[in-house]
Amino acid sequence: MSGNTFGKLFTVTTFGESHGAALGCIIDGCPPGLELSEEDMQRDLDRRKPGTSRHTTQRREADEVRILSGVFEGKTTGTPIGLIIENTDQRSKDYSKIASQFRPAHADYSYHHKYGVRDYRGGGRSSARETAMRVAAGAVARKFLEQRLGIRVRGYLSQLGPIKAEKLDWSQVHKNPFFCPDADKVAEMEAYMDALRKEGDSIGARINVVAEGVPPGLGEPIFDRLDADLAHALMSINAVKGVEIGAGFACIEQKGTEHRDEMTPEGFLSNQAGGVLGGISSGQPIVASIALKPTSSLRLPGKSIDVDGQPTEIITTGRHDPCVGIRATPIAEAMMAIVLMDHYLRNRGQNGDVEVNTPVLGQL
Amino acid sequence: MSGNTFGKLFTVTTFGESHGAALGCIIDGCPPGLELSEEDMQRDLDRRKPGTSRHTTQRREADEVRILSGVFEGKTTGTPIGLIIENTDQRSKDYSKIASQFRPAHADYSYHHKYGVRDYRGGGRSSARETAMRVAAGAVARKFLEQRLGIRVRGYLSQLGPIKAEKLDWSQVHKNPFFCPDADKVAEMEAYMDALRKEGDSIGARINVVAEGVPPGLGEPIFDRLDADLAHALMSINAVKGVEIGAGFACIEQKGTEHRDEMTPEGFLSNQAGGVLGGISSGQPIVASIALKPTSSLRLPGKSIDVDGQPTEIITTGRHDPCVGIRATPIAEAMMAIVLMDHYLRNRGQNGDVEVNTPVLGQL
Amino acid sequence: MSGNTFGKLFTVTTFGESHGAALGCIIDGCPPGLELSEEDMQRDLDRRKPGTSRHTTQRREADEVRILSGVFEGKTTGTPIGLIIENTDQRSKDYSKIASQFRPAHADYSYHHKYGVRDYRGGGRSSARETAMRVAAGAVARKFLEQRLGIRVRGYLSQLGPIKAEKLDWSQVHKNPFFCPDADKVAEMEAYMDALRKEGDSIGARINVVAEGVPPGLGEPIFDRLDADLAHALMSINAVKGVEIGAGFACIEQKGTEHRDEMTPEGFLSNQAGGVLGGISSGQPIVASIALKPTSSLRLPGKSIDVDGQPTEIITTGRHDPCVGIRATPIAEAMMAIVLMDHYLRNRGQNGDVEVNTPVLGQL
Amino acid sequence: MSGNTFGKLFTVTTFGESHGAALGCIIDGCPPGLELSEEDMQRDLDRRKPGTSRHTTQRREADEVRILSGVFEGKTTGTPIGLIIENTDQRSKDYSKIASQFRPAHADYSYHHKYGVRDYRGGGRSSARETAMRVAAGAVARKFLEQRLGIRVRGYLSQLGPIKAEKLDWSQVHKNPFFCPDADKVAEMEAYMDALRKEGDSIGARINVVAEGVPPGLGEPIFDRLDADLAHALMSINAVKGVEIGAGFACIEQKGTEHRDEMTPEGFLSNQAGGVLGGISSGQPIVASIALKPTSSLRLPGKSIDVDGQPTEIITTGRHDPCVGIRATPIAEAMMAIVLMDHYLRNRGQNGDVEVNTPVLGQL
Repeated sequence: MSGNTFGKLFTVTTFGESHGAALGCIIDGCPPGLELSEEDMQRDLDRRKPGTSRHTTQRREADEVRILSGVFEGKTTGTPIGLIIENTDQRSKDYSKIASQFRPAHADYSYHHKYGVRDYRGGGRSSARETAMRVAAGAVARKFLEQRLGIRVRGYLSQLGPIKAEKLDWSQVHKNPFFCPDADKVAEMEAYMDALRKEGDSIGARINVVAEGVPPGLGEPIFDRLDADLAHALMSINAVKGVEIGAGFACIEQKGTEHRDEMTPEGFLSNQAGGVLGGISSGQPIVASIALKPTSSLRLPGKSIDVDGQPTEIITTGRHDPCVGIRATPIAEAMMAIVLMDHYLRNRGQNGDVEVNTPVLGQL
Repeated sequence: MSGNTFGKLFTVTTFGESHGAALGCIIDGCPPGLELSEEDMQRDLDRRKPGTSRHTTQRREADEVRILSGVFEGKTTGTPIGLIIENTDQRSKDYSKIASQFRPAHADYSYHHKYGVRDYRGGGRSSARETAMRVAAGAVARKFLEQRLGIRVRGYLSQLGPIKAEKLDWSQVHKNPFFCPDADKVAEMEAYMDALRKEGDSIGARINVVAEGVPPGLGEPIFDRLDADLAHALMSINAVKGVEIGAGFACIEQKGTEHRDEMTPEGFLSNQAGGVLGGISSGQPIVASIALKPTSSLRLPGKSIDVDGQPTEIITTGRHDPCVGIRATPIAEAMMAIVLMDHYLRNRGQNGDVEVNTPVLGQL
Repeated sequence: MSGNTFGKLFTVTTFGESHGAALGCIIDGCPPGLELSEEDMQRDLDRRKPGTSRHTTQRREADEVRILSGVFEGKTTGTPIGLIIENTDQRSKDYSKIASQFRPAHADYSYHHKYGVRDYRGGGRSSARETAMRVAAGAVARKFLEQRLGIRVRGYLSQLGPIKAEKLDWSQVHKNPFFCPDADKVAEMEAYMDALRKEGDSIGARINVVAEGVPPGLGEPIFDRLDADLAHALMSINAVKGVEIGAGFACIEQKGTEHRDEMTPEGFLSNQAGGVLGGISSGQPIVASIALKPTSSLRLPGKSIDVDGQPTEIITTGRHDPCVGIRATPIAEAMMAIVLMDHYLRNRGQNGDVEVNTPVLGQL
Repeated sequence: MSGNTFGKLFTVTTFGESHGAALGCIIDGCPPGLELSEEDMQRDLDRRKPGTSRHTTQRREADEVRILSGVFEGKTTGTPIGLIIENTDQRSKDYSKIASQFRPAHADYSYHHKYGVRDYRGGGRSSARETAMRVAAGAVARKFLEQRLGIRVRGYLSQLGPIKAEKLDWSQVHKNPFFCPDADKVAEMEAYMDALRKEGDSIGARINVVAEGVPPGLGEPIFDRLDADLAHALMSINAVKGVEIGAGFACIEQKGTEHRDEMTPEGFLSNQAGGVLGGISSGQPIVASIALKPTSSLRLPGKSIDVDGQPTEIITTGRHDPCVGIRATPIAEAMMAIVLMDHYLRNRGQNGDVEVNTPVLGQL
């Protein structure tokens, strides 16, 4: 058990089940003096919220966050920030089937073997609903990073099933329901999703996240590398099956002369590394990419077993995202922000009185 | 600083620089009563050791490990196991160039900004030489997992640059210098590597690691998921730029009906999940895949800067692996074993007196 | 910052300020299948609650705890247990004096230097009000320890200022407002407290805590010793200035022949060790004793300075405990239970398949 | 298992048994740029070393420490510092009795129940020999604290059995074999120890440790309080049964008017708090006191049992300290230094851009 905390100096601990009384989290380690209000978090929570277009689940979750501690007269005090979101959409319905059957590709079977008991309503603790608290906590990290350090963390959907974004225009990302940075692909995506919904099937997606303005020197060598912590954080998001930093899997077929990012006094000539060298930030943008699997909650029947080991057939009715990847953009941003915040705190004043005169290189 | 420890209950802490006096590690949390000798570790260390074929660096590293504590009368006692490998190949040479220049795509520049000072000899702490200790620690975990729990962790090279293994024949893996499970591809790989060496360039690779016999129920929900910890562990290996679990990035273009692993009383019908559901093992084989970048230590000149920000040209002479991925197989196995060991200890007796009668499913 | 979490496998993270919206905590690591309701915690919370006799502060704190997650159909699920106590007694009053002055022997001055800002209302985060959440979390640990392992954790007041309890009669502890186990001393204590209140001064106290039924083998050698973790836990309670295990400071003048607890097949002949040998439980009762300082919130004026460094005089009006030690009994019990719970989880199945046939000794 | 690591950002992990091949430790988190050589540690190791007077064990332990990593060109690099002390005094002798019997008040019985197996030679891991590594690690912390922050950590023996030091003259501490700061008591202590040795018995002691120059603001509220971490660290030293901060147990009989340390613009008027308010340093000297039990290794026979539960009689021949407390002074200093170092790193730059203008008060 345990394992519901992330971070070493900036720690986020969450609680809450999909259909429980409330979700909540404790952010421990936020420095004092940061202006903070519910609105700062609500912005990001609303971006994650379902039901904002016909392409995500029509479930209604108000997701209104309340700050319970750690903020005084509008500013953080350095003490733990308690957050809560009361669950309002707890429909009482018949859960007897879910209780006794294992949905394929869900956590039902593995939770059953780990815990013996489980809150099966809506997936209980394994529901992606928990990520609402990560988004709220990430918003605190993002605000600190932006205001104090000029670090900006942003994400976008780079691929929806077979459709790839071919342009990165940040100004487009929030102009469509997909977080797609390529306006030319939006119509195609809409048509694809409409067909998928009719079909009753689901599809995977790819999300990219980028942090700009990260100073060189953040991270640790060996195990707590910045990229390793990012991989940990991003792989911990529901439905993620792969994580890449910089060139990622493309590096397999790259030659050394192609992959190495040459340096000139004017800047790095490329960013195959994705902003991390030896586990430590290089000053270039941190670039990560994740793969999200298609949801397994489908109208199309699937084979499974029940708790007694007997065969059964599963059909999921109800409100589900045909592409869970779409709503993952703010979650991925949140996790990257939390990792950067933690490493910033671990590195404050780290090189002591050793002088570092070398200029910080940008990217050409 | 810090960050040189991995694990929560089975912890591995390493020390040592490439050209320092010695490498070492402390394994804390190994249960008592496990038969253990240096030979158990030496086997895996020798598989990682350079200079065993013409395709890896010709550097000589004896890599002889010595157990300093934690083993009494041939068995572990439950107290920390201290390990040491004395460095024997410390050639004294002129390091003045390395000291003042930053090699592209190495940790030189980022270490400089983090620490101000660095042991530049052979990359110091950022050298992959550190991974010898991970292999030694992993050997302890592997022995425990095999002997006590019947869990077997094995890896292989599935792609070398453009050449992909198309068959998985475990019996072939140790019959060639590449850890390649497809005998038909070995000649092609040899030719490719010979050409590459002549050219003076390097290439990336892909390694797969598989754990069989893992019982269902290992892992934690939310942040310390088994797959998230694996991503952390594997991304912390030098040169790794991407991590996949199960279907990995292929899931982007998969539909839900294709990705969901259906279950029957006889077993799972597929393993797209890679053995992890909701962060917790499902009883299927745990399957991970990693991408390793091509080394940047090349005879071919590359642009860079020196510590004063002035332009310079870097040529790396000396003994280097043209494909660092080759030797990464035992390292990846070690990290997966360490993660599984840690989660096994965290889960011992976890479900208390709750009965779990559901049969454990294998894979068809 | 951070530091608001206790424990390694059974972790308790608290949030909340004295006069904030709510107090709360997250218990991570409670095994599944434990029957748990609010009543289980309320019992202990009510024992800590102020205003139950004229000898404690007359402040009204309902301290009604609500379970927000981690319990399903009356049983724990193994997922984090979120708890909340809404603050109801938030009198709005004039805090301008407290805001700009440092109360002697309070955390005002040190918080000011650490954080720069602070929630000064009622001491903010430094208020002992936070311990309500420890008592709630401790109640979960205590229930598990009692039901599953037969371990009972109990405390009592052994000294109030100059008045020492001379008898230990557990049945008396809850029959007087002091948690005093010696009925003959209660009248004396009442008279002493009445005089003290008139005087406007305060007094220190000593609390003893005992855990019976602890099996031998809990704890770790070296740093995470059971006694070291107990010292950590107990010293972390507001106002505690000293911690003893077993003989405690009396051991300074003891000879080895007197201190060593001799063993016979029928049992240990004494318990000077307090149930811990080499950091690991011996099977004897765990015995700890703590010293609590007198509160510094007094009607009698004291010298201090304000935030500008100017001299000022502090008089504390309002509702305060003249002996904060009295209400510390349930808090000390809670912290001991949390430590034992954590070490139990760390030790489950620890000696693997090594047989331990030696009989477990009781105490004669 | 595990538990052999102390600290969060400045971590010390030790390994090694009394009669094993070597003792060692890894210091992770020491900032770069600190001049460091073996001599810096040897000084403190020699103060702890046995056999320097007739009042400590005549066992010969060279205790020569070697730095294996983390130091380059005479300065720390920020990477882990590996330390080793090879064991030279490993007399081979007959251990069959120790192997099958439990020495009273030693860790034999509790280790047996925890681990099933144990390295019984000289107490194995439970031997105080492990503290040599703490002293070495503490020396690094002390050097950093002194050089960079002007913090000085010093200890002395304040009581040996019934004999109390009545004067604190720091210049005397190293002029006698007891670390006694009161020259007038040394003769009495010598006579007492000589009689004790003849008698074959042992005695307890009290050690005080003081840190001067600690800035206000170090520490965390709630669980990781500076005083709680000190209690943890000090109680983790072999033979310690009690820990006090400031007034300690004397506070039980103090009134609030006596205990509260009043403040004036010129400074604090007293230091009952021992330099910690609300878990955070106040800028006054940090003052701690510990009680060490008399050793149980005695020539005088004691009752015990063997591993089969049969009665036996234990007589310890061989070389033992009749007062283990004497040599504990450098160990206690080391642990306090490690705690302060860790909290310094956790607090660096903590209050962000919040201005703290209040003058730092000294003590009058």
